[in-house]
Amino acid sequence: MSKAYEEFKTYLDRAMALKTAMTLFEWDNETLAPKEAGELTSNVIGTLSGEYFQAITNDRMKALVKELQAEQGLDEVQAANVREVADELEQLDCIPRNEYEDNARLVAKSTAVWSKAKKDNDFDSFAPTLKKVIEYQKKFAGYRAKDGQKLYDVMLDTYEKGFNMENLDRFFGILKEELVPFLKQVTESKKKIDDGFLTGDYPEEKQEKLGRFLAGYVGFDFDKGVMAVSAHPFTTNLHNKDVRITTHYTDRVDSSLFSVIHEAGHGIYELGIRDDLTLTPVGQGASMGMHESQSRFFENIIGRSPAFWAPIYGKVQEMFPDQMGNVDLDQFVEAVNKVEPGLIRTEADELTYSLHVLIRYEIEKQLIEEDLDVEKLPQLWADKYEEYLGVRPENPAQGVLQDIHWSQGSFGYFPSYALGSAFGAQLYYHMKQEMDFEGLLEQGKVDVIREYLRENIHQYGKLKDSRTILKDVTGEDFDPKYYVRYLKEKYGKLYEVEA
Amino acid sequence: MSKAYEEFKTYLDRAMALKTAMTLFEWDNETLAPKEAGELTSNVIGTLSGEYFQAITNDRMKALVKELQAEQGLDEVQAANVREVADELEQLDCIPRNEYEDNARLVAKSTAVWSKAKKDNDFDSFAPTLKKVIEYQKKFAGYRAKDGQKLYDVMLDTYEKGFNMENLDRFFGILKEELVPFLKQVTESKKKIDDGFLTGDYPEEKQEKLGRFLAGYVGFDFDKGVMAVSAHPFTTNLHNKDVRITTHYTDRVDSSLFSVIHEAGHGIYELGIRDDLTLTPVGQGASMGMHESQSRFFENIIGRSPAFWAPIYGKVQEMFPDQMGNVDLDQFVEAVNKVEPGLIRTEADELTYSLHVLIRYEIEKQLIEEDLDVEKLPQLWADKYEEYLGVRPENPAQGVLQDIHWSQGSFGYFPSYALGSAFGAQLYYHMKQEMDFEGLLEQGKVDVIREYLRENIHQYGKLKDSRTILKDVTGEDFDPKYYVRYLKEKYGKLYEVEA
Repeated sequence: MSKAYEEFKTYLDRAMALKTAMTLFEWDNETLAPKEAGELTSNVIGTLSGEYFQAITNDRMKALVKELQAEQGLDEVQAANVREVADELEQLDCIPRNEYEDNARLVAKSTAVWSKAKKDNDFDSFAPTLKKVIEYQKKFAGYRAKDGQKLYDVMLDTYEKGFNMENLDRFFGILKEELVPFLKQVTESKKKIDDGFLTGDYPEEKQEKLGRFLAGYVGFDFDKGVMAVSAHPFTTNLHNKDVRITTHYTDRVDSSLFSVIHEAGHGIYELGIRDDLTLTPVGQGASMGMHESQSRFFENIIGRSPAFWAPIYGKVQEMFPDQMGNVDLDQFVEAVNKVEPGLIRTEADELTYSLHVLIRYEIEKQLIEEDLDVEKLPQLWADKYEEYLGVRPENPAQGVLQDIHWSQGSFGYFPSYALGSAFGAQLYYHMKQEMDFEGLLEQGKVDVIREYLRENIHQYGKLKDSRTILKDVTGEDFDPKYYVRYLKEKYGKLYEVEA
Repeated sequence: MSKAYEEFKTYLDRAMALKTAMTLFEWDNETLAPKEAGELTSNVIGTLSGEYFQAITNDRMKALVKELQAEQGLDEVQAANVREVADELEQLDCIPRNEYEDNARLVAKSTAVWSKAKKDNDFDSFAPTLKKVIEYQKKFAGYRAKDGQKLYDVMLDTYEKGFNMENLDRFFGILKEELVPFLKQVTESKKKIDDGFLTGDYPEEKQEKLGRFLAGYVGFDFDKGVMAVSAHPFTTNLHNKDVRITTHYTDRVDSSLFSVIHEAGHGIYELGIRDDLTLTPVGQGASMGMHESQSRFFENIIGRSPAFWAPIYGKVQEMFPDQMGNVDLDQFVEAVNKVEPGLIRTEADELTYSLHVLIRYEIEKQLIEEDLDVEKLPQLWADKYEEYLGVRPENPAQGVLQDIHWSQGSFGYFPSYALGSAFGAQLYYHMKQEMDFEGLLEQGKVDVIREYLRENIHQYGKLKDSRTILKDVTGEDFDPKYYVRYLKEKYGKLYEVEA
């Protein structure tokens, strides 16, 4: 290791330790911390975040990065870490430290404000905080914008390199054009699916037990992972030997089960990252979209297929004899794929899901690019749901308050959810050529599929970006046609409609 | 605020944020973290601990402390913070940073090694790690020793200012002289107490529910606190709005119940610390002994008294009708005060407890001052138990492996447990003169007693040391006679023996 890289690594280790600590605080806030802890703890997080800022942006680090960017002898991992830090330096260095710390404190508080507002069904109590969060996000994007780059494009690029309003307008345009009329066909189909048995008296302990079984079955390793409860399910990780997922329990058993498989998919990605990358900036998923492609791959492409349930459905019936004893495998699989336009994104079926994302994309564009008044959000939100999905929220908790993301300052993040589904479909059609996909699932060999994903995607962390990964695996650039094809084939067959 | 203090406060906030992060990692390691996380996480903790070291010991901080020690205009809290940092600087500055970080990593790992060794009942797998931990502790004490100060005296002073082998030899001498023969009288008494009903089928969920009730009843505020499960019950806190206790469940219901009241006592201390002190070095309990005085005050002096249970025992009977329906209040209170020399300190009754501590004190002295071979620990431990308590552990899990402390490098800590009991007894006899102690408990007014303790002890944090607090509250210096008197009065009466 060169002297310069060695010194660089010291600063990097410091930064990663601080980041890991902040991750643990976040996890703790969402899963365990007592109600009144928020304010003081957010001061602590603000200070740590300032220290992180300092570890990356100090003058010595800047000089080292410049020196290392010119150095020839770096190996692939070293070069990637220098590149990631240089990127981050560029992003952070334009933000005054006091604003950076203020924002970190604000965000730590605002998730608590959001959480309470959602509980109280009171958008007005969240609006002033949300306004401040947006102001900071726009300010920061303004600092980072290059050559007249638009603010929302800056934000989009943060989560998905190479994507901006131009190509996302196109992507969402195709989805809108293809899926809105197709959804109409589906909802008007004579085929009716009964999913009544999925709602009922499903005790939490049993849901948890089944959730843990399913997470383990798809490959989430509980010796390196933890599962807990939070308001909004999420995955986080300290490193590749400590990956954490959450879920929540309702009276709909499929809600927790598929959220567990979804988060386990995220978790498996992080568990699969190479040992030499973990606890470095390269040691995380390639992008938000690629991450979401994996979680949704496990949740939907694997998890909602008849082949997946074939070897294990008997176990589910045994656990819930009263509710599922008389429901056969086909009925069960149809029920968990029932299409029903609804209000809540995280509860959406696979077909309507991307329309939920479309709505958020359009609203974010207005918030960031057209200075949409925050007060108008509940109304606009409701109008768009009515227009695209034919349902209208009766209150903000079912509408604009449902997602945590904006309270965290994550604007430009939502599109990755739809991109992820599209990445997954493209991977799926390729994998079907490489292996007997459904046959493997029927034999309970999820591990072969998981290993393929680990080998071709997970292990690399951020050594490759999402577009490169897609090209390397499938031989093609990203193409949304596979996603449309997948949805039309699957739901055309299920609802007996001509796609 | 003076310019110098303002700058000092910036470094201090940084140090406290890092310390708070390390506290959260510790909590997480003991309660939740997955099995394989230890090694990587301990690297992270090592780095954070190095940053903490740097925040306190950097040259600018040293200069500021020197300047502020000479400054006249500081208020009481500022002066106390400068004093605490100066103390810590003196302690840390003599330790080379690499050794300090190595030790932090070692300790993070060694608790996991201990935990596994205890589970596997295998002292040999822990011995090499323990040796290293001791080596570091001795090395560090050596760096800190002044004017030929003995190593174990350095360690003792860390936990309890003003206590050393000279006065602790005297203290433990009195206990040994008074309590060993008294214990013999008690165990030979004709009075037999039946506590069989305390063992049995007590479901964890119900124990937890009752534990939460009791913690709340004595004043642990769950809006500012959390209760979880760990191998060895403990209390920790991020600040005075986030205080955390743990317990564990066995088939002995009193084991978890009194451990909850004990930890709630620690927690109430931390919750009572003034807002202007929290998240500063002064914002924690005065000393280990004073802390233990409060936990044991709640557990024993309050929690094992008939007056405490009078208003709530009916509730306990309702929860466990099969086990306690036919046990009246007097029988219950006698049972939870039954004296029975045993192997496990944390399960010890109030009378034999200090003899468990005596054994650890004598062994620590040998480990630190006489280079006792670690390999000989299991044997020596067993011999001493046989000598003082008349019982002999059959395996290391019931013997030398039972406590976490040594794996954490905490040598000199144990004596504070006995001192705490003695502090508590002295406070008790004074409070009986100030208020109708038993009458208040009988009326369910634990809050009056708790407020007295908050007002006179908790709020001050480390503004006063334990000896000063005792003097200010009781008008007397520390005197072990109250402890001996308390035990002889209480157990003389219970066992109908002449004290």
